[in-house]
Amino acid sequence: MSEFDFNEHSHRRYNPLTNSWVLCSPHRTKRPWQGQQETADNESLPSYDPSCYLCPGNRRAQGDTNPEYQNTFIFTNDFAAVKSDQPQFLHKSDDKFSSLLLAEGVRGECKVMCFSPKHNITVAEMSKDAIIPVIKAWIEVYRNSFSIPYINHVQIFENKGAIMGCSNPHPHCQIWCTESIPEEPTKELISMTKYYEKNKSCLLCDYVLLETLKLQDKPRIVCENDSFVCVTPFWAIWPYETMIIAKSHVKSLIELDGVKQLNDLADIIRRITCRYDNVFKCSFPYSMGIHQAPVDENDHSNDSHLHLHFYPALLRSPTVKKFLVGYEMLAEPQRDLTPEQAAETLRKCSEIHYKQE
Amino acid sequence: MSEFDFNEHSHRRYNPLTNSWVLCSPHRTKRPWQGQQETADNESLPSYDPSCYLCPGNRRAQGDTNPEYQNTFIFTNDFAAVKSDQPQFLHKSDDKFSSLLLAEGVRGECKVMCFSPKHNITVAEMSKDAIIPVIKAWIEVYRNSFSIPYINHVQIFENKGAIMGCSNPHPHCQIWCTESIPEEPTKELISMTKYYEKNKSCLLCDYVLLETLKLQDKPRIVCENDSFVCVTPFWAIWPYETMIIAKSHVKSLIELDGVKQLNDLADIIRRITCRYDNVFKCSFPYSMGIHQAPVDENDHSNDSHLHLHFYPALLRSPTVKKFLVGYEMLAEPQRDLTPEQAAETLRKCSEIHYKQE
Ligand SMILES: [Zn+2]
Ligand SMILES: [Zn+2]
Repeated sequence: MSEFDFNEHSHRRYNPLTNSWVLCSPHRTKRPWQGQQETADNESLPSYDPSCYLCPGNRRAQGDTNPEYQNTFIFTNDFAAVKSDQPQFLHKSDDKFSSLLLAEGVRGECKVMCFSPKHNITVAEMSKDAIIPVIKAWIEVYRNSFSIPYINHVQIFENKGAIMGCSNPHPHCQIWCTESIPEEPTKELISMTKYYEKNKSCLLCDYVLLETLKLQDKPRIVCENDSFVCVTPFWAIWPYETMIIAKSHVKSLIELDGVKQLNDLADIIRRITCRYDNVFKCSFPYSMGIHQAPVDENDHSNDSHLHLHFYPALLRSPTVKKFLVGYEMLAEPQRDLTPEQAAETLRKCSEIHYKQE
Repeated sequence: MSEFDFNEHSHRRYNPLTNSWVLCSPHRTKRPWQGQQETADNESLPSYDPSCYLCPGNRRAQGDTNPEYQNTFIFTNDFAAVKSDQPQFLHKSDDKFSSLLLAEGVRGECKVMCFSPKHNITVAEMSKDAIIPVIKAWIEVYRNSFSIPYINHVQIFENKGAIMGCSNPHPHCQIWCTESIPEEPTKELISMTKYYEKNKSCLLCDYVLLETLKLQDKPRIVCENDSFVCVTPFWAIWPYETMIIAKSHVKSLIELDGVKQLNDLADIIRRITCRYDNVFKCSFPYSMGIHQAPVDENDHSNDSHLHLHFYPALLRSPTVKKFLVGYEMLAEPQRDLTPEQAAETLRKCSEIHYKQE
């Protein structure tokens, strides 16, 4: 294989000032720009769009044709941020100067998963039964990643809405499988480990206990079922940020114990996304992501606990978004609305979608 | 004074999952919403706008009238995120559960500083001589903060452009003085301290040495003068992110040694902001912030080194912005263009503003 090339191959670079990493995908600068689309309410969208690269039967950028899929459909991103076919690279720092230019290669795979053949639906309007195949497909990708030796982490995430940089309204998520365990999950693994070492219990098990049982007035719970709780975390950054947390100590999607927990996860995803849309009676844009145990060779019994983060972008109307700029970038995230106020608003929202009422 | 009230008083909350803090300003939910304005090219703006709350002689939201100022003008933000008149509050964690709901009160002051009486100018179009009074005013605020006992940190930052959430084009910055040292500066202080302990030299002094002298081809230098260098840092997140770094070990603005370094700072600020506007021949939106020694009682000889961060929002045209969403929020910041490519583009840009050519 060729030499490692910083202008061709994906790598991450170390920021010695903030002790953090950034992923760099230089080959992607060559991808064709698909342009931004204007926000369109999905009421005005067709259920099949012949120009959509995710709709069943359509041709994609690099010539492949999508099958006539019934529920979900997964394919490798035609313009992936990380790829499997590049040389390994690990920069060693031998003196103080090289420690300021630290980088490492990142091999991986980027997949796209369609949630439904229907172009004009979102998770918020899907039934619980329609969400179950999505979760099953996530489990499948996560499980299979264990067998790819150079893959150590699987990040499932969904960008919903044009203001989240998502140019295609067709319901879908992305799955980036990488050699490195990225920044945010790493921070969580470190905190969970420290907490476990100190308290001999799981940080998120304890947090669930605190929010669901210890506090009388349950100020941050939005909704719950037997297996999961959805809360506005005490430390939330985004105005309507929530977390779905497994009530039992489940490390990853593959540990869900069969039909009941699978059903409950689909149930709570449907309920919170539906509530989001009902807050401002619009399709609420957000980024959602699943945090669970890495797929490396280490034991994650005590540092991983399945949870989903929802980072919704809106502040006070369908068009007024929250900006994370200025003070947030230079100093510290800042919010006005408290998580408890947000929880109250979300609790008041119906679990029947406003379009179906 | 009244009891500390989580629904009234500014506080920060601890995120035990990521070991970080978020600032919460609940009283601000009551401020009147001034609405978003559409992006307007400042060519079409008047030099005085009777409806602008920053223009000389105009009345502000809470009734005060701006003076007929000549260069800069500073006032306390009418809707401040932090305030001086609230009780002190420090949450103690006595068991593992209270360590999951950690918060502390944040007293402080939020100021607004106008850069110029002219409504339709930006730093990019200001002369070096017009930028000098801005720097002098920053120095003044920073110096005065030492005499306010409960203020430990001064964050000077500028949001430029509507897509950075800045609704008023009148050239101005904000200065938030706080009891707590915020998240980002804290990370830098920790890293600088560790580096100093290990290498007995300053991280940023060494980085300047590396970029300006050790590397033959100087791949990341955009421009420089005797006292400052502007680079696209090796670990930059934003496509055109840069840092202005003092070449000598200057801890803060008040250590600038008189006329020469002051002049050089004004010079390099003018040159980089002008280059930004020339990249896409538009007013380039960004957040800019100054990092320097805290104004607390500790010795910052070895953990602080004056530098400015520019986080510009655009990716490939005046309307196509970079989104930090999805993978960036859930996993790790990601970029396509390398910092070296960005430096090359910025180096090719003129230091004469495109409107003045
Ligand atoms: Zn747990
Ligand atoms: Zn230094």
